[in-house]
Amino acid sequence: MKRLWHWPIDPLARTVRLALGEKRCAIDLVSVLPWAQPEELASMAPGARAPVMVDTGAEEKVSAVGTHAICEYLEEAIPTPRLLPFVAQERAEARRLWRYSEDSFADVNATLLTERVNQWVRRAREPDSGALRTGVHALKSRMTFLNGLAESRTYMAGRMLTLADLSIAAHLSAYDYFGDVPWDMTPDLKAWYSRIKSRPSFRPLLADKVDGTRPARHYADLDF
Amino acid sequence: MKRLWHWPIDPLARTVRLALGEKRCAIDLVSVLPWAQPEELASMAPGARAPVMVDTGAEEKVSAVGTHAICEYLEEAIPTPRLLPFVAQERAEARRLWRYSEDSFADVNATLLTERVNQWVRRAREPDSGALRTGVHALKSRMTFLNGLAESRTYMAGRMLTLADLSIAAHLSAYDYFGDVPWDMTPDLKAWYSRIKSRPSFRPLLADKVDGTRPARHYADLDF
Repeated sequence: MKRLWHWPIDPLARTVRLALGEKRCAIDLVSVLPWAQPEELASMAPGARAPVMVDTGAEEKVSAVGTHAICEYLEEAIPTPRLLPFVAQERAEARRLWRYSEDSFADVNATLLTERVNQWVRRAREPDSGALRTGVHALKSRMTFLNGLAESRTYMAGRMLTLADLSIAAHLSAYDYFGDVPWDMTPDLKAWYSRIKSRPSFRPLLADKVDGTRPARHYADLDF
Repeated sequence: MKRLWHWPIDPLARTVRLALGEKRCAIDLVSVLPWAQPEELASMAPGARAPVMVDTGAEEKVSAVGTHAICEYLEEAIPTPRLLPFVAQERAEARRLWRYSEDSFADVNATLLTERVNQWVRRAREPDSGALRTGVHALKSRMTFLNGLAESRTYMAGRMLTLADLSIAAHLSAYDYFGDVPWDMTPDLKAWYSRIKSRPSFRPLLADKVDGTRPARHYADLDF
């Protein structure tokens, strides 16, 4: 039995859900607001915050915190289908781009995504236009880089689907929920995303609805 | 033959050097200024920046970019001594804290460390006092958290030395080069650091000297 503490729109939690979906793992989801992390998590490990996964089906109970610990654990515990290639060079490239995704989208999360969550989910205040501009600029710059990869590769790290694809798609999908992804700017990235979005692992993400919000009209369309 | 493109004071490159040291790997070092990354690296992988490691002694040449790809590769290629525990729960905890270290010290790197590098290495300008204050504040907050771990555990993630220890020590050592670590505030963390600092893998870091700078007086002292 696997249980995941997550917030539906969190790109990091989405990465884990996609990895679990690809590995065809049933999962019990517990929703956690990012601005109110429960004590329950901190008691599992000092300072722990969602995403946190607990696996009670393993020989010994395992609790893992954060995408790095969770996804590397899943890869070790459920090796098929692989989300990191067998060949060392391809593995290294997948891990590089997985990490690139988390590091380089962190700026977009802290600006564009945070403002949209404040605006539409928390209904706390009008978004800060400076933060929105900074976020959109950062997002476009990452998309331009990724479009170059999508132009020359089937998947981000090469020939097979890896955690790099799942992480990048998870981030873009969160921004896309609020209609903030300028897809037409990067046609190769759009074509790649369209393929990832059509995978069965993606369906639960496309069905997500948070509080009183409505996702952007094209959000769940496979032909967007 | 392993070659590492690095900058001596970069905490991420230091993490890799410590991991290589623990695994008793000879390494050919190529110094790269963080503010002038060579084309050579970008030609290995799109957008690659130091630390980059190339291993030509493997069956097939492997180039890995970034701490995550490099250290996980080293752990797979040279399993002894282990830097990630065998037991799944302990492995997950080591990876969580390794990642916590990189994520939570990123703020300190961007403020305190960057200002010191500008001040003492690049001799570019007087440090921005606001950025220094922000950095010192962030550093103290991380140290308080880590002191709590050091109080109850032999090593950060539990009973054995892991990549979490190496990453945390690598970051603190970079700030310590410029004399910026308030050790007396956190006695358990200081005692832990003193043990890590005495390891043979640490010696090359303590011998580092960058350009015209002089490290803080106690920097290389094992009894500081």
